[in-house]
Amino acid sequence: MPGTHVRLATDEPLLLDCGVALGPVTVAYRTYGALNADRSNAILVCHALTGDQFVAEPHPVTGKPGWWDLLVGPGKVLDTDRYHVVCANVLGGCMGTTGPMDINPETGEPYGLDFPVITISDMVQVQALLLDHLGIDQLFCVIGGSMGGMQVLEWAARFPERVFAAVPIAAAARHSSQNIAFNEVGRQAIMADPDWCQGEYLRHGKVPTRGLAVARMAAHITYLSDSALHRKFGRRLQGRDALSFGFDADFQVESYLRHQGITFVERFDANSYLYITRAMDYFDIAAEHGGALSKAFADTPVRFCLFSFTSDWLFPTVESRAVVKALNAAAANVSFVEVKTDKGHDAFLLDEPEFATTLRGFLDGAGKHRGLGEG
Amino acid sequence: MPGTHVRLATDEPLLLDCGVALGPVTVAYRTYGALNADRSNAILVCHALTGDQFVAEPHPVTGKPGWWDLLVGPGKVLDTDRYHVVCANVLGGCMGTTGPMDINPETGEPYGLDFPVITISDMVQVQALLLDHLGIDQLFCVIGGSMGGMQVLEWAARFPERVFAAVPIAAAARHSSQNIAFNEVGRQAIMADPDWCQGEYLRHGKVPTRGLAVARMAAHITYLSDSALHRKFGRRLQGRDALSFGFDADFQVESYLRHQGITFVERFDANSYLYITRAMDYFDIAAEHGGALSKAFADTPVRFCLFSFTSDWLFPTVESRAVVKALNAAAANVSFVEVKTDKGHDAFLLDEPEFATTLRGFLDGAGKHRGLGEG
Repeated sequence: MPGTHVRLATDEPLLLDCGVALGPVTVAYRTYGALNADRSNAILVCHALTGDQFVAEPHPVTGKPGWWDLLVGPGKVLDTDRYHVVCANVLGGCMGTTGPMDINPETGEPYGLDFPVITISDMVQVQALLLDHLGIDQLFCVIGGSMGGMQVLEWAARFPERVFAAVPIAAAARHSSQNIAFNEVGRQAIMADPDWCQGEYLRHGKVPTRGLAVARMAAHITYLSDSALHRKFGRRLQGRDALSFGFDADFQVESYLRHQGITFVERFDANSYLYITRAMDYFDIAAEHGGALSKAFADTPVRFCLFSFTSDWLFPTVESRAVVKALNAAAANVSFVEVKTDKGHDAFLLDEPEFATTLRGFLDGAGKHRGLGEG
Repeated sequence: MPGTHVRLATDEPLLLDCGVALGPVTVAYRTYGALNADRSNAILVCHALTGDQFVAEPHPVTGKPGWWDLLVGPGKVLDTDRYHVVCANVLGGCMGTTGPMDINPETGEPYGLDFPVITISDMVQVQALLLDHLGIDQLFCVIGGSMGGMQVLEWAARFPERVFAAVPIAAAARHSSQNIAFNEVGRQAIMADPDWCQGEYLRHGKVPTRGLAVARMAAHITYLSDSALHRKFGRRLQGRDALSFGFDADFQVESYLRHQGITFVERFDANSYLYITRAMDYFDIAAEHGGALSKAFADTPVRFCLFSFTSDWLFPTVESRAVVKALNAAAANVSFVEVKTDKGHDAFLLDEPEFATTLRGFLDGAGKHRGLGEG
């Protein structure tokens, strides 16, 4: 895998939430823009479920632009002329960071289901080790959408002294029952594929592409919205003038979904999908703090800016409001913007001017407080 | 299969929307309550995607109460002391009416994918033949939820003179892009199962249980609501005190969904699932009438009463409102009630007092106009 790699936890292994000691751990990451002399301008970007470290450069497998190319780069909102942007593939991922497709040193075979079940907190712990390695004591900002936003919240709760500002986008402090249900459907689709081989498909030279594609298709619907699908596809037919009275992809939306499934399996590992969805399901910051979300952020020095999107039904505004309420109860410095859009959960990846403008303003303001130069 | 069966379209085959002539057609149906001397008290109940004719008596496979036992029976809202209730398994179904698991007379083997693709209109045409057979010229009422509501709308549009009153519940005049997408995920899950055998699993002595279970799990989430899932399950664990850090069903919602998948495959045929979801996708009454929904109901004599449920995101209120608007444009006699509930799409199957009371009132009022005796 191209990009930068570092082996961490080499002296002593990482103690995971599940109780397993894991180490050494390889972390695959990318940086954009220079770290300033004060080492005070670093922004950690946390990626979502199927994201990776290639945030602002072409993806090595698909050749597509970086997943947040719209926001990260010279002169952009996350301005790499001003900020040092760091993005690492999460623990359990499949783009170079240690995960279930890697070789288990104890067996010499790919981990498969022998890989320990990891949590959002474990992911954050690995990111903290990476920052130690990079000599970054405190982040200017940690930012991310969806599962990335979960990591942001975990960062603020666990390492408040290492975070100056935090931007959780389209996220939640705990995964909802409905979201666990959707994740479970995806996992069952993968595990129903005989080519999954009880998780040992790599040893058998197989790939559960059909199951993984179905998982992706189901998940992809949840990233959009009813109105966005109606606007993009409606009931329009795909490459034909009339219904076929068959089971081919008559409708554009079917063709689009099938394409999403087919292309996903080329770049993602099925077991990683199981592990990362499980980490999301397990996420519940309040539960880690005696059931009170505000306790997770007691006396926090972190400046927060939260975003939600009106048509996001996977991480609806009510989830962000619960976090804002807890932060207010902890007397934290918090801004919150609900952006009006019909683009659903994926809006954070798309061109949303109100989101971009507000985020730029928040970073500018926080940058002044942090003593960063003008843009 | 127990129950009543009749062979229809014996003299001349049924001309389906796809252009295929199909016949004879077996229809499996059940009736409850006596037909009056005027033959004016019949109510046709149309079932949803996975429903069947066993509306008010135990299901012969599962032993569970009839799917609308709550509403259909002596003294109930659909009072079988007053009304003659008829319910038939739809064309393409798997509970006795001709469908893809039946023997294709041309080959002597189960139809599989040689069964013609059917439409909601084809289902209604078969129901009309059944009413001919039963000597019922005009229904007092045709009623149904979800896909059943689609059939109700099709009945009113196609055979207005045969319908005195129509009650479409949690339905739509056309299947939305998002709903087509969810159906496509279910179909892909089934077709991804190697035991589906390109649709010929019955010939190979196999059943694509894993794929069908995944399809059911994905669909089942859409029948509920975020808040209902939160209320019923939240993040509660299933039979354990702590997370297992594995891929068993840690959460109650996972266990519930898996159970839904496992029990569904015992009573439903995978190819029927493909055909019936396709019929829903193809449904678009306006398209059948030059693009104008109001034209479908021009000068209609039918009395309509529509219901939607606030938390139903599969067939949201906006879909019912579009039908009401078209009916108003056609100067039809129409009532509409949006019932406040957190139970989601499935609310029409559940104990919803406002829904039951309003429906009883509508039937009483319509019954007086039709000259039916008091209850």
